[in-house]
Amino acid sequence: MNDTTNGPGEMHEILAELPLVDHHCHAVTTDDPDRVGFEALLTEGTVWPDSGISPFDSPVGVAVRRHCAPLLDLPRHARADDYVARRAELGAREVNRRFLTAARTDVFCVDTGFAPARATTRAELAAAAGGDAVAYEVVRLERVAEAVAARGVEPGEYARAFTDAAQQAARRPGVVAVKSVAAYRTGFDLDPARPTDEEVALAAARWQADRHERLDDPVLVRHLLWTAVELGLPLQLHTGFGDPDVRLHRADPSRLTDWLHRIPGSVPVLLLHCWPYQRQASYLASVFEQVYLDVGLTLTYVGPARARVVLEEALEIAPFRKLLYSSDAYGLAEFHHLGSLAFRRGMAALLQERVDDDELSRADALRIARWTGRGNAERVYGLDNGIREVRPAGGR
Amino acid sequence: MNDTTNGPGEMHEILAELPLVDHHCHAVTTDDPDRVGFEALLTEGTVWPDSGISPFDSPVGVAVRRHCAPLLDLPRHARADDYVARRAELGAREVNRRFLTAARTDVFCVDTGFAPARATTRAELAAAAGGDAVAYEVVRLERVAEAVAARGVEPGEYARAFTDAAQQAARRPGVVAVKSVAAYRTGFDLDPARPTDEEVALAAARWQADRHERLDDPVLVRHLLWTAVELGLPLQLHTGFGDPDVRLHRADPSRLTDWLHRIPGSVPVLLLHCWPYQRQASYLASVFEQVYLDVGLTLTYVGPARARVVLEEALEIAPFRKLLYSSDAYGLAEFHHLGSLAFRRGMAALLQERVDDDELSRADALRIARWTGRGNAERVYGLDNGIREVRPAGGR
Amino acid sequence: MNDTTNGPGEMHEILAELPLVDHHCHAVTTDDPDRVGFEALLTEGTVWPDSGISPFDSPVGVAVRRHCAPLLDLPRHARADDYVARRAELGAREVNRRFLTAARTDVFCVDTGFAPARATTRAELAAAAGGDAVAYEVVRLERVAEAVAARGVEPGEYARAFTDAAQQAARRPGVVAVKSVAAYRTGFDLDPARPTDEEVALAAARWQADRHERLDDPVLVRHLLWTAVELGLPLQLHTGFGDPDVRLHRADPSRLTDWLHRIPGSVPVLLLHCWPYQRQASYLASVFEQVYLDVGLTLTYVGPARARVVLEEALEIAPFRKLLYSSDAYGLAEFHHLGSLAFRRGMAALLQERVDDDELSRADALRIARWTGRGNAERVYGLDNGIREVRPAGGR
Repeated sequence: MNDTTNGPGEMHEILAELPLVDHHCHAVTTDDPDRVGFEALLTEGTVWPDSGISPFDSPVGVAVRRHCAPLLDLPRHARADDYVARRAELGAREVNRRFLTAARTDVFCVDTGFAPARATTRAELAAAAGGDAVAYEVVRLERVAEAVAARGVEPGEYARAFTDAAQQAARRPGVVAVKSVAAYRTGFDLDPARPTDEEVALAAARWQADRHERLDDPVLVRHLLWTAVELGLPLQLHTGFGDPDVRLHRADPSRLTDWLHRIPGSVPVLLLHCWPYQRQASYLASVFEQVYLDVGLTLTYVGPARARVVLEEALEIAPFRKLLYSSDAYGLAEFHHLGSLAFRRGMAALLQERVDDDELSRADALRIARWTGRGNAERVYGLDNGIREVRPAGGR
Repeated sequence: MNDTTNGPGEMHEILAELPLVDHHCHAVTTDDPDRVGFEALLTEGTVWPDSGISPFDSPVGVAVRRHCAPLLDLPRHARADDYVARRAELGAREVNRRFLTAARTDVFCVDTGFAPARATTRAELAAAAGGDAVAYEVVRLERVAEAVAARGVEPGEYARAFTDAAQQAARRPGVVAVKSVAAYRTGFDLDPARPTDEEVALAAARWQADRHERLDDPVLVRHLLWTAVELGLPLQLHTGFGDPDVRLHRADPSRLTDWLHRIPGSVPVLLLHCWPYQRQASYLASVFEQVYLDVGLTLTYVGPARARVVLEEALEIAPFRKLLYSSDAYGLAEFHHLGSLAFRRGMAALLQERVDDDELSRADALRIARWTGRGNAERVYGLDNGIREVRPAGGR
Repeated sequence: MNDTTNGPGEMHEILAELPLVDHHCHAVTTDDPDRVGFEALLTEGTVWPDSGISPFDSPVGVAVRRHCAPLLDLPRHARADDYVARRAELGAREVNRRFLTAARTDVFCVDTGFAPARATTRAELAAAAGGDAVAYEVVRLERVAEAVAARGVEPGEYARAFTDAAQQAARRPGVVAVKSVAAYRTGFDLDPARPTDEEVALAAARWQADRHERLDDPVLVRHLLWTAVELGLPLQLHTGFGDPDVRLHRADPSRLTDWLHRIPGSVPVLLLHCWPYQRQASYLASVFEQVYLDVGLTLTYVGPARARVVLEEALEIAPFRKLLYSSDAYGLAEFHHLGSLAFRRGMAALLQERVDDDELSRADALRIARWTGRGNAERVYGLDNGIREVRPAGGR
């Protein structure tokens, strides 16, 4: 039995072999972090070095010691200090190569708006994965808006300046999607209507008076979402689980329903992470044509032991063409491996049991494996329609 | 092993044989839909014919191909097109007969306020089920209110006119319950107090000015709920999951708590569907004497593969006398079969495991099977106290 | 196989033997209740004696008949009437001794602000458990505030008088924590800011005008929470599930996020019960250093059949140093036994499966068992730093 990706049954073999499309991830560090630095990247919170509480003693930390240690030539369940020491000994380049190769992912869509201080470029990420891997770009719109404001803009000009900048960013080679973190900034209890030009100008003036730092004005966030829809690219939305900046209950995607009703027939809207609202996301994906979901980040943090349960809930009612794979890996190349592993194992267990129980035909199970692992992403991002030819350009 | 209803163990046999009371369902179509028409009835959303995304590729669609195809003489996991073609070949009458017979349901409580364009009458539904099956009526109160408004009423007369019409409807032969879809119209964040006559008259005037179409004024919805309680019949309430008209978070039944505190000792309040808030519903049923729950509609949509998990959560703390069976079948006779199948399998698996683990005695398991499958409904609706004698009258 | 606490596998043996720290519980009755009186203590709701619906026919009632009956020399799954009769025959003293001994708990932290009419003192509770068991005190702050108000205080003096009384209570021998039931009084949608002295005085005047009965003024509740933080003791917070006085959705602990951001580096905040928001609590515990959680009360009510699932969700992302054991037993000594049993079984099943799947090392599993069963509580409450020497003083 392969040590890290297989389990019993054909579906495990098939999912272990399938090259994935990771439709949402980030760069990984090119530093060799010490224990505290590693822990800081291992948690969605902060580190508490003097507390006796380590993220190594959480589900994700246990998964790193179990499933990542062997790839660094350590025994399974290695000690945390040994793990960090061995990682530094091998060096970031080799570590990143090992985990990204193990992830068996040949397409990465990289959110370039949030990365560690010293981090891989898109090209470096793809290169570390080896083979034909390519890395596309996802443009984080809040960053675009904040850059527009930082270089100075009259409040009355903000709407146009942001729209221009967003359009320009969307046209950059290799860009396949845009993303918003409205969930963090205001949550989803927003007026669903498009704000008027006057409202936007007024809000921009308020924001300017507030020094233009963080885009968290409800009017400007709404304007950003409406602008996103008009760009014509798939729109990724953070929902649910994330760092302590989120208010979980306000990031429940069902709070987007009014807005989703106003944008039918528009761009695909991809609900990211979703936990603990994966059932709510499953519902939205089942009734809104343009809505898709993933449980990226979540699968990594709950680990292989719980990935299947989360996937079962995410797929509880949604069409099987609506779930995508992502790792949401950030900082640590380990997350590319763990996300992939948890997805492969969880989906395989789900599908194998249904095939064994004759609840699902083998042919359907094979289609669902391929759809969720890559086909749905290829379809949403048009990766088979020529975009695939665009090799990563930015950051090289 | 019986192909569609049994699993290993005595509880599976017992539940497979038990005639069910379906305390909430709808009429089924008497048309022979084409593929798009069938898909439109298969989803709670709309159909997306050119999207490449079909409800046949969702849990409920997979369940239809697996569990309904054999009843149409097709192989398990039949192709969608073959399924729709064979269905049309047999014709609605025969199709409905086959699925309704397979459902082994001898009492139907039919929500007559929402039905497909061409659909079975209550008598036709009962006849399709064969044997001694009877079909009672559930009066949807929003329809009653909208009919009152449509025939013209002075705002100051609305309250009395609606109450009169509701009382009249409640007295129709065969009526066993009333229902409200307040969850769709306003959600449950309502002022729990009974509105005054003046408030109702004022709201009715607003509604009249708004052409009396859809009853979604918060004051009138509150008035409807209070009127419902005074009718003396059990009150069914849509909660949670449904068509895209719902805002899921506002349909969380825990938001009814203030109102439930104001109506103790009144009529039974039956929380329908509940998903993904079945645990919240389980809580309410455990602390409020008058509250009951079901996971109808949900079981059909999640399919037999997940029915047990949903039932486990619905019964996590509630007394076993509080859960009822419903299919919430609408449009497709398949849903009568699938709802019944998912309930029987899910309950049997839950009970059998507890008996096998000696967590539950066999005698208790038998009682719980019978209670949830029919006894609780018989008790709530008084079906053993003479109402059973009332044969369906309306619609024949 | 031991009848009540073991299951297959080493983890079951280890957890069955581990003496627990129950960091949140209540006194038990010293009366011999009749059937209605017993049922009133068995449910979080009220009893409905003429309804045909008994809490004996709910998961917790089934668990009592299965797991408590043998300790009263009755067969497993005894009838409810036999159970109540045998209990009375043995008498409260013997019944309490049997269940508290079976609970294998050597430290109790007793919420003294809520107890049955005739109930064990802390010393009696510890004595019933036998051996070296000790019982510490948890001070319920709403009771302190209500006592301050009851003995008469000028609105302008309320803040100081309450703070003084709280400090005095916190210094009583054997006190290890304070507790708030803000979840019941206002829910968690509170302004997170510390109220000003003027706001508190104004609110105290309103409360006085309202006869000082139940502290449910939002300003005074906020003041109570901020005062709690300044006392320096761990703060227990009721969240989620409880009696019908709660509005479940307002007791979702994620609604505390703004407040938690304002009190970093302060006292430990222990989220109690949490269901059905155990995933939300798991998230908060993973990103806030000071946040801990338990699923006490919940495990008792869902019973051993579902305890593992709830624990899996509670530990879905939280560090394993963040989960504590509590029974939240109130009134019935049975709950001390059932809470302990459900925790031991649920944790053992969770850990054993992960060890068997090689997802967790045996050494880690042993640490996690010890941490969650007692080590985390010892650490949070400083039970190994001398407080352990303080023998229960109050109530003897």
